[in-house]
Amino acid sequence: MNIEGKACLMKIYVGESDKINGRPLHEEIVFEARNAGLAGATATKGIMSFGASHSIHTMKIFAISGDLPVVIEIVDKEKKIKKFLKKVDQLIDGSKKGGLVILSEIEVHKYKKGEKYQDPNSS
Amino acid sequence: MNIEGKACLMKIYVGESDKINGRPLHEEIVFEARNAGLAGATATKGIMSFGASHSIHTMKIFAISGDLPVVIEIVDKEKKIKKFLKKVDQLIDGSKKGGLVILSEIEVHKYKKGEKYQDPNSS
Amino acid sequence: MNIEGKACLMKIYVGESDKINGRPLHEEIVFEARNAGLAGATATKGIMSFGASHSIHTMKIFAISGDLPVVIEIVDKEKKIKKFLKKVDQLIDGSKKGGLVILSEIEVHKYKKGEKYQDPNSS
Repeated sequence: MNIEGKACLMKIYVGESDKINGRPLHEEIVFEARNAGLAGATATKGIMSFGASHSIHTMKIFAISGDLPVVIEIVDKEKKIKKFLKKVDQLIDGSKKGGLVILSEIEVHKYKKGEKYQDPNSS
Repeated sequence: MNIEGKACLMKIYVGESDKINGRPLHEEIVFEARNAGLAGATATKGIMSFGASHSIHTMKIFAISGDLPVVIEIVDKEKKIKKFLKKVDQLIDGSKKGGLVILSEIEVHKYKKGEKYQDPNSS
Repeated sequence: MNIEGKACLMKIYVGESDKINGRPLHEEIVFEARNAGLAGATATKGIMSFGASHSIHTMKIFAISGDLPVVIEIVDKEKKIKKFLKKVDQLIDGSKKGGLVILSEIEVHKYKKGEKYQDPNSS
């Protein structure tokens, strides 16, 4: 897979406790991104947020609630990212918890697999 | 609130231990973003950094110092983000710890509130 | 150092356990960014990923493996970022673990050092 050159970064903001079919929404998004053959995805947990799927009351309530934000970043060619948007919409809508999805143009300078990914049959 | 289409992502890099009026700078920025009626904000804690508000000596010193980086991401229409910049400047200047603020153009594909945000008086 | 105005954000995705010369790859990248005189770098640890340097099997295996993702963000003028790409390539290639490097155009609104960075000899 070569995705170097102009490409797209999708960022998805959801809540850590949001679920879809009984499973964490952010995990489902990462698994589905892989199933869709996308080049890569990285999920990161935040410490505080408000917005589509969150509310701030006080930090105490926030900390107790455990409803921390998770941001998922997915990189691939625009065409593949746009095709995957339908699946992301489906998952977020199914969770009934809302979310934010943004896209931006980026340039992929390097996309290189580690040696552990070399085909074991190749010399 | 509908922010779909062309919009702006503001990223603010500060130190976790930076304070303004005795309170954590990054929390104040998130609260003020909400007070300003912005669409959403997410704060994430990093593990290592240098730059406007940090210095690296060795990882040991860094780990002991506890002065870890925090990145705050705020998304809204450019006009609202640009208006909020004055408040961000004020907070960072007030902390006397410095910081980095960057802006980039993005496209909001989806901004959807969870069901818990529905007006309880609506049917 | 004044980097306000049009600039570049480099994002580097690697694995937490990736090493170069016996040291963590992400730490080496941050130290080398500082050695290169770049304006700033921030590393953040993720909770889940797949892609150039990772594979998802199940969350259990993932959690056991400890091979969590790390994202490094570096901001500076495009010219300095592009010059630093060679060093990043060298480090990632040397680790033999692969990685993803993306670039995007941003605008630096503010880059301000904290008071602790003032020259002690200045009045």
